[in-house]
Amino acid sequence: MSGQIAPSFSPSKDPAAVFQRLGPQMTALDRFMREQVAQFEPEIRDMAAYCLETSGKRLRPTLVFIAGWQGENVVNDPLVRAAGVVEMVHLATLVHDDIMDRAELRRSRSTATREFGPDAAVLIGDALFSQALHVAAQFPTTDVCRMVSESTRKVCSGEIMQTLHRRDMGVTMADYYRVIDLKTAELFRVSCHLGAKLAGYPEEFVRAANDFGRHLGIAYQIYDDLVDFLGEEKNIGKTLGTDLASGKLTLPLMRLLDKLPAEERAEIVSAMQQGRPLPLGVNVARMRSLGIGVEVAQAVDEELQRAADVLKPHAGLAPVPLLLQLSDLLKKQLAGLSASASVN
Amino acid sequence: MSGQIAPSFSPSKDPAAVFQRLGPQMTALDRFMREQVAQFEPEIRDMAAYCLETSGKRLRPTLVFIAGWQGENVVNDPLVRAAGVVEMVHLATLVHDDIMDRAELRRSRSTATREFGPDAAVLIGDALFSQALHVAAQFPTTDVCRMVSESTRKVCSGEIMQTLHRRDMGVTMADYYRVIDLKTAELFRVSCHLGAKLAGYPEEFVRAANDFGRHLGIAYQIYDDLVDFLGEEKNIGKTLGTDLASGKLTLPLMRLLDKLPAEERAEIVSAMQQGRPLPLGVNVARMRSLGIGVEVAQAVDEELQRAADVLKPHAGLAPVPLLLQLSDLLKKQLAGLSASASVN
Repeated sequence: MSGQIAPSFSPSKDPAAVFQRLGPQMTALDRFMREQVAQFEPEIRDMAAYCLETSGKRLRPTLVFIAGWQGENVVNDPLVRAAGVVEMVHLATLVHDDIMDRAELRRSRSTATREFGPDAAVLIGDALFSQALHVAAQFPTTDVCRMVSESTRKVCSGEIMQTLHRRDMGVTMADYYRVIDLKTAELFRVSCHLGAKLAGYPEEFVRAANDFGRHLGIAYQIYDDLVDFLGEEKNIGKTLGTDLASGKLTLPLMRLLDKLPAEERAEIVSAMQQGRPLPLGVNVARMRSLGIGVEVAQAVDEELQRAADVLKPHAGLAPVPLLLQLSDLLKKQLAGLSASASVN
Repeated sequence: MSGQIAPSFSPSKDPAAVFQRLGPQMTALDRFMREQVAQFEPEIRDMAAYCLETSGKRLRPTLVFIAGWQGENVVNDPLVRAAGVVEMVHLATLVHDDIMDRAELRRSRSTATREFGPDAAVLIGDALFSQALHVAAQFPTTDVCRMVSESTRKVCSGEIMQTLHRRDMGVTMADYYRVIDLKTAELFRVSCHLGAKLAGYPEEFVRAANDFGRHLGIAYQIYDDLVDFLGEEKNIGKTLGTDLASGKLTLPLMRLLDKLPAEERAEIVSAMQQGRPLPLGVNVARMRSLGIGVEVAQAVDEELQRAADVLKPHAGLAPVPLLLQLSDLLKKQLAGLSASASVN
């Protein structure tokens, strides 16, 4: 869930990007989100607006629209509403994430917790969750509500596991994948599922879109963990990412620990466990010499390959080229990251 | 939402109480809640169990069962599930309430926030909300999910307003009623509505049960605010309730402020705004001499009268005597409170 501040997974860097084609759908989503604000009690409407009217990337709505793609300028109302639901769930999780991380800024703007205080932010997050499910309950059947509520529980479960694992150096690779599968891939998966389903595509494709979303979500989170791992280093040249500071074991760090000599490893483990700054020798140059970036990039590629594979039997359907384009975009961002940070 | 620690609104004090008749339904609810625990991801199951397996009064499930009463030993599965949904929503709000109140104990047991830390507690509350809505989405139609999600949003909105009003001495009686209508009466209302509806009673009675629940909820919250107002005084003879300490304006305090001489009033307002202890002169004896208890009891009675009135046209239906019994029980508790604390 923390992945949405990745700076470069954005349409502006790639004129051919799939995002460019979603103008009418995103305009409809804008309108839908504004209408949602009016659904909140008048006394808390400004707070709801503050949380809903963001400049976010809208990755999950993008997945809904693309998995349910029916052609240029086709704006399908159920897709818009489903996109609104997954985005609201996501924004609610961000409001609660920011409380836990004591974050003051998100996208250069004051977080809800800083703006309204953490107590109000807990409740605003709850109100956003509730409203998301309320919209989900306005579809003709209970399917959307059932899927989204279960998905939301899983996202929270993944976040809880991550919270419990903080500064726990016994976390395994399986634990890591389990957490990102729940906290990130789950909502990606449901977004793709709902898009394909609500657009009326055949069940086999709905299942393929579902699996594509899951693999893309895993890939995206690993990519995002790498961004975090390298991010701070790039900016200020000294410290590593915020995940490290918060004691979160991510794939890049796990790979690093695997490769370091026992003594150096013990030093890092001890620093993380005690919340001390990491030894200065742990920097990007060191990552490079150990080939960490290459290995992490491979893990992302593997997931993207799985994502592409599940779509193969459906190559003739309209959403498929766009879904693959999205996957390619992530691959490209990863390559750019590797190049700029010289991680390989 | 904070009202559930009232010590005396319990079946044991009144052998004739309606609670006594709900044995089979509550046993079914126990089983349902245990089954719910198994629905959570294995890694967080113990935490879910900790939050779900409480010794709470189950007022909201009681309302579901009574509003949908079909006779002794009739255990209607949809009612059990609806009771589980409203109770889970309520327990989720308590988990989040306790974070905000920095509460360490609830019903003599460590709160989730103390047990697992506030960060995990935010997320566990979210997971409980999600699971409640997930169960709601398993009914044949979207009705339950739609009603419960909207209700949950309203409960949160009421709590937000209350949080924003802390230490705000400009709060009016209308503001107070608005907050308790949302934070407490809303879920009482939906509980009664769902019970009557799912048991198959006619629409006119469903609406009456709905309105009964709302008035009972308002009455209950005012009663609970009086319990809080008098509670501490009774126990340690010096300070007043926790609402006062947290700067929450409730009906008893508003009535008190109305009646005090300007100077004394200013002293209390200033103490509350600055979070200082209240002047010692503000104690139960003073309440008594000013007739505060009588006035607050009148406000409760008014709501209970409205609650009874809406049921009049449906006197022949099985749930009605039990609903009235519940209302009488609250009246009796109020009388007991008045007598023991000598507020009139």
